[in-house]
Amino acid sequence: MEAINVGLVGITGYAGMELARLLAVHPSMRLVMACSRAESGKRLGEYYPFLEKLPGCDVRISQFTPEEVKEKCDLVFLAVPAGKAMQMAPKLLKAGVRVIDFSADFRLQDKAVYEEWYALPHEAKELLAEAVYGLPELYADKIAKARLIANPGCYPTSIILGLTAACKHDLISSKNILIDSKSGTTGAGRKPNLPTLFCEVADNFRAYGLVRHRHTPEIEQEISKLLATPVTLQFTPHLVPMNRGILSTIYAELKDPAMTAEKVWELYHETWKEAPWVRVLPLGKLPETRFVRGTMFCDIGLALDKRTKRLIIVSVIDNLCRGAAGQAVANANLICHRPMDEGLSHTAPLV
Amino acid sequence: MEAINVGLVGITGYAGMELARLLAVHPSMRLVMACSRAESGKRLGEYYPFLEKLPGCDVRISQFTPEEVKEKCDLVFLAVPAGKAMQMAPKLLKAGVRVIDFSADFRLQDKAVYEEWYALPHEAKELLAEAVYGLPELYADKIAKARLIANPGCYPTSIILGLTAACKHDLISSKNILIDSKSGTTGAGRKPNLPTLFCEVADNFRAYGLVRHRHTPEIEQEISKLLATPVTLQFTPHLVPMNRGILSTIYAELKDPAMTAEKVWELYHETWKEAPWVRVLPLGKLPETRFVRGTMFCDIGLALDKRTKRLIIVSVIDNLCRGAAGQAVANANLICHRPMDEGLSHTAPLV
Amino acid sequence: MEAINVGLVGITGYAGMELARLLAVHPSMRLVMACSRAESGKRLGEYYPFLEKLPGCDVRISQFTPEEVKEKCDLVFLAVPAGKAMQMAPKLLKAGVRVIDFSADFRLQDKAVYEEWYALPHEAKELLAEAVYGLPELYADKIAKARLIANPGCYPTSIILGLTAACKHDLISSKNILIDSKSGTTGAGRKPNLPTLFCEVADNFRAYGLVRHRHTPEIEQEISKLLATPVTLQFTPHLVPMNRGILSTIYAELKDPAMTAEKVWELYHETWKEAPWVRVLPLGKLPETRFVRGTMFCDIGLALDKRTKRLIIVSVIDNLCRGAAGQAVANANLICHRPMDEGLSHTAPLV
Amino acid sequence: MEAINVGLVGITGYAGMELARLLAVHPSMRLVMACSRAESGKRLGEYYPFLEKLPGCDVRISQFTPEEVKEKCDLVFLAVPAGKAMQMAPKLLKAGVRVIDFSADFRLQDKAVYEEWYALPHEAKELLAEAVYGLPELYADKIAKARLIANPGCYPTSIILGLTAACKHDLISSKNILIDSKSGTTGAGRKPNLPTLFCEVADNFRAYGLVRHRHTPEIEQEISKLLATPVTLQFTPHLVPMNRGILSTIYAELKDPAMTAEKVWELYHETWKEAPWVRVLPLGKLPETRFVRGTMFCDIGLALDKRTKRLIIVSVIDNLCRGAAGQAVANANLICHRPMDEGLSHTAPLV
Repeated sequence: MEAINVGLVGITGYAGMELARLLAVHPSMRLVMACSRAESGKRLGEYYPFLEKLPGCDVRISQFTPEEVKEKCDLVFLAVPAGKAMQMAPKLLKAGVRVIDFSADFRLQDKAVYEEWYALPHEAKELLAEAVYGLPELYADKIAKARLIANPGCYPTSIILGLTAACKHDLISSKNILIDSKSGTTGAGRKPNLPTLFCEVADNFRAYGLVRHRHTPEIEQEISKLLATPVTLQFTPHLVPMNRGILSTIYAELKDPAMTAEKVWELYHETWKEAPWVRVLPLGKLPETRFVRGTMFCDIGLALDKRTKRLIIVSVIDNLCRGAAGQAVANANLICHRPMDEGLSHTAPLV
Repeated sequence: MEAINVGLVGITGYAGMELARLLAVHPSMRLVMACSRAESGKRLGEYYPFLEKLPGCDVRISQFTPEEVKEKCDLVFLAVPAGKAMQMAPKLLKAGVRVIDFSADFRLQDKAVYEEWYALPHEAKELLAEAVYGLPELYADKIAKARLIANPGCYPTSIILGLTAACKHDLISSKNILIDSKSGTTGAGRKPNLPTLFCEVADNFRAYGLVRHRHTPEIEQEISKLLATPVTLQFTPHLVPMNRGILSTIYAELKDPAMTAEKVWELYHETWKEAPWVRVLPLGKLPETRFVRGTMFCDIGLALDKRTKRLIIVSVIDNLCRGAAGQAVANANLICHRPMDEGLSHTAPLV
Repeated sequence: MEAINVGLVGITGYAGMELARLLAVHPSMRLVMACSRAESGKRLGEYYPFLEKLPGCDVRISQFTPEEVKEKCDLVFLAVPAGKAMQMAPKLLKAGVRVIDFSADFRLQDKAVYEEWYALPHEAKELLAEAVYGLPELYADKIAKARLIANPGCYPTSIILGLTAACKHDLISSKNILIDSKSGTTGAGRKPNLPTLFCEVADNFRAYGLVRHRHTPEIEQEISKLLATPVTLQFTPHLVPMNRGILSTIYAELKDPAMTAEKVWELYHETWKEAPWVRVLPLGKLPETRFVRGTMFCDIGLALDKRTKRLIIVSVIDNLCRGAAGQAVANANLICHRPMDEGLSHTAPLV
Repeated sequence: MEAINVGLVGITGYAGMELARLLAVHPSMRLVMACSRAESGKRLGEYYPFLEKLPGCDVRISQFTPEEVKEKCDLVFLAVPAGKAMQMAPKLLKAGVRVIDFSADFRLQDKAVYEEWYALPHEAKELLAEAVYGLPELYADKIAKARLIANPGCYPTSIILGLTAACKHDLISSKNILIDSKSGTTGAGRKPNLPTLFCEVADNFRAYGLVRHRHTPEIEQEISKLLATPVTLQFTPHLVPMNRGILSTIYAELKDPAMTAEKVWELYHETWKEAPWVRVLPLGKLPETRFVRGTMFCDIGLALDKRTKRLIIVSVIDNLCRGAAGQAVANANLICHRPMDEGLSHTAPLV
């Protein structure tokens, strides 16, 4: 079997860093191009000392040009900010290269919603209908046929996976869904910035982006599809003094006030028992972010409050692996007709 | 002025440790007795090296006896588990010593509610009517006349202070109040325990006590009083990999869908502008736990979601100072007719 | 190829936990037995939720008996305290099972030294001559023929690898070698204990075991061999508020005061360029524990102080993977005539 | 008594932040001027929300001008980088304002040494003879008469206090003094910078500045004075994933090989028993950075290695309070003929 040659645009962020480490040990993909304006010219192993003596460490970091992509790559990962990807993707697709985009540029199917929440005009709206939302558990078939993947946001991944079974089995009302999420600090990016300095984050906890976080419409789009009705929901993110991990505490009103925790668990278990990466914990157990660190797992804990008639779903993922780079590799595997979990069945230190 | 002689039963926990440090620099109180079964016989400065060369370091740790309390103390702080305080308090009051109890034993005015949530028979129910809930912003007058103070729980302190203005000004519905709280790990106590080892907590985040945390009825009791109607609410706590601090994200439905953020802010500001320890942040700013670390402050941030018609209140306190030992000192000051903030107007490292 | 059936005695500690995760993805080894007195009867995936849906999760935890080992295992890992391993190993060897011991019981070739530093009589001294010190870079050939491996201590691994090139090339004096080491908190074990609670370790730094840490004679034994002269050295460990990683700062007097940093680097590079797991950083770069997290790498940085005529070597490893479980797997690979790095060429999250 | 009006130039760094918090509760000093180019125009409480409702919160941040200092201040603290202070100080002294400088500009009495290590020409060398090194335990009398104080560096403070008793009592050789120091991350400053982002520091440990850290000549200057002979020593700093605190592990050769730990302890105890801020721990106990957090204490632990004939001194301070802002306040107290510990006898959270 020939290696699949892949490129990565945006090597210096945390998602790019995570992808570089995953590709270094991927059995069939080979990183042949790594782009960064600021670090151009360095060997990858020089920039990231943890990659030395690993495959890919000798790739020379380059400035992005569509020509280099066309020449070298079968597939390219874009780990660039929203607004940039919509400029790059059309050229790359035209050059016959498949694209997996980490940004939000192709996640929202409604251009108007994108422009409202991202405050940017969309410059590649002709691709919105074609782009596939890259959540393998929901869209594996479409992904396998796509040229352009919109890799899901980290918060949405944890929340959509947490709610899928409840939606599919009609357990919850579409009203008053409320999600209180907490993320590790890699989610805030790798750009030097006062609020993300060690001493400003350590031994501290805070909320941010109240009532206007940009992942809100992405979550609403997917939950609306699952419930087959337009959903407006509450989403509040928080910053945790840890590197990785997202925990979403999801509150929803039960449709049937006589529903039991055991029945809910049964339906969740049924939904996910064959899925390699979704684990429904026994009743009475709750997930912890460390148990999924560095992996593709989404762990789900369930509680039912008889006093308030609410279902509480606690869902955890690793924001960089499952919520970004690992999910991108899974999508790349599907596009390239490789086993979905190739290169992704590793474990990682949980302490 | 003569010093007020105080005793502390339960020196080894984090609340006891915090109280020892506050009393070491209190201008009018003097720690004359410190009790611990396990550490009896040691000098306080030997057990807590950070207290050496500070007032109180030479107190010899003793086993609790009502006789020693009676002989030495004007007032005693009980930092003992629920179930123990109800056994100690009656004897101490009989001996003429005023009691400030850190446990939940005297917080719930309804004995049945206590027995349901704590799964213990109440052995001093005759004191429930007399005990005063020690939240100075709400009950300063009663506290000043009390013999027995039920020092509030840490989560309830952050939540009640966060909701007071909204309740008093009739801004929110009594239905569907939902509180998602996050606490530093001192809240889990100082008993050696696998789940609170450094490596089990660091770089990790988890929920706990879903739908049955014991602070729920305490919060409901006080919010019901403020809203003058029985309230059933949702309360979920989480464990943050940091030492101190509680952040409560409080979601409530607006009574008036046309309410504005500016108007809500105005009413909050009006409510708290003279309070020494409650700070309402400007709209657009959100509180952080570090800004209140080691102090009596409760910082409150506000947001109003026009899409969902909800008011979101973010409230932070230090769980050990405001949520336990500092609040106890404030109560002791009031009982002893000292200025409420005596010994409590310090600052503390915020990084 | 048939799977190699392996057992693990001591599943509940951090080294056992790490080994369980490494074995879950090892291509040719299969965990068939996992022993723990306290957790006996549980499924491994029940005890360690991070293992669910991974190979090995259905192994039932059992009480250790030599009979079960004999029946099921080709090889057994002992992750038990010093003093226990010397009781188990003779029986296991007699049953024809090869043993890789994580404890210090078979590391010190001189029984008297063991008894002095560990304050225990040695009960299996007849095996001391046979046991092989399991540092693959130094003893791969012997390891491949051994029945009993003494898996090196975590601190010694970082220090011996850091000093090997300097010793072999006769760069340093055998006098006045001084090592100041710093370890993550997994090194302190997983037993519930006040000093390793999160709040006692976080935002704190301390030394421990001054002048009498038990790894001292182990380091001296191996450095004495490398320098071919008896060495007495200074070793001081410290506890870092992080989970994993050891950094050893090693100070040694240069034999030749005219030696240059460039020449030292050249000799280090020469020594290690073919080694898969030892990386000598360019002059001017210093290693960081995160760059080796969860891996077998030992990264080495070098500086030469012209003012003091000292060579300073900074060496980092992951204490649980390279310093315990991963090194044990490498030894098992060698014993079983598998490629040394089988199952060990993974990456791990560095943030 | 009239308040002493003080100014602070450099409000945005961690030392400036710490000084602002200390001055907010100082009984006789009043912050009347706070300078920062970047934040000019804001209220201090707006920039530092933790200061709201505290004295000083209404000071308006201004751009530094000597005129404003002259008009408003009796004394000014300079928390500006090396190179800036030497430009500001002469003008301020000329205007009759006393100066406490946090930078290194006036610490090194030998201009040539300054210029070598700081790679800057010294522009105010005429003040070097006059400036007093502001370590109160050594130079209180001179400080009380000074116009210009060179506030000591954080590492030197911990090391000089750790070595004073050993030097004064002639316990150690002047050769082969070796200091391995570890600092919290506030020591790296508050400028946004990739290497000090939370995710680059958390769960990580590294050395830096090997063989050329700028505090080296400062330490050598003071230890040379104490030993009355020129000293060349080894100093290596490390970065700890915690906010505050410095721990220095100091290794020195005993002059008398028959010296005992008990005798050393006796001499240390004798030296420091009357000092309010230096605590010599009992033999067998070691200091921890948290025990001095936010305070002026320097805690010292001692061990004597009979095998290597070395004295090991472990010394801890809080780098921002004792190692910068608090020490500056102590110096200001002395200059202003106030009790040395005024405003500094607080405690701070140790967890």
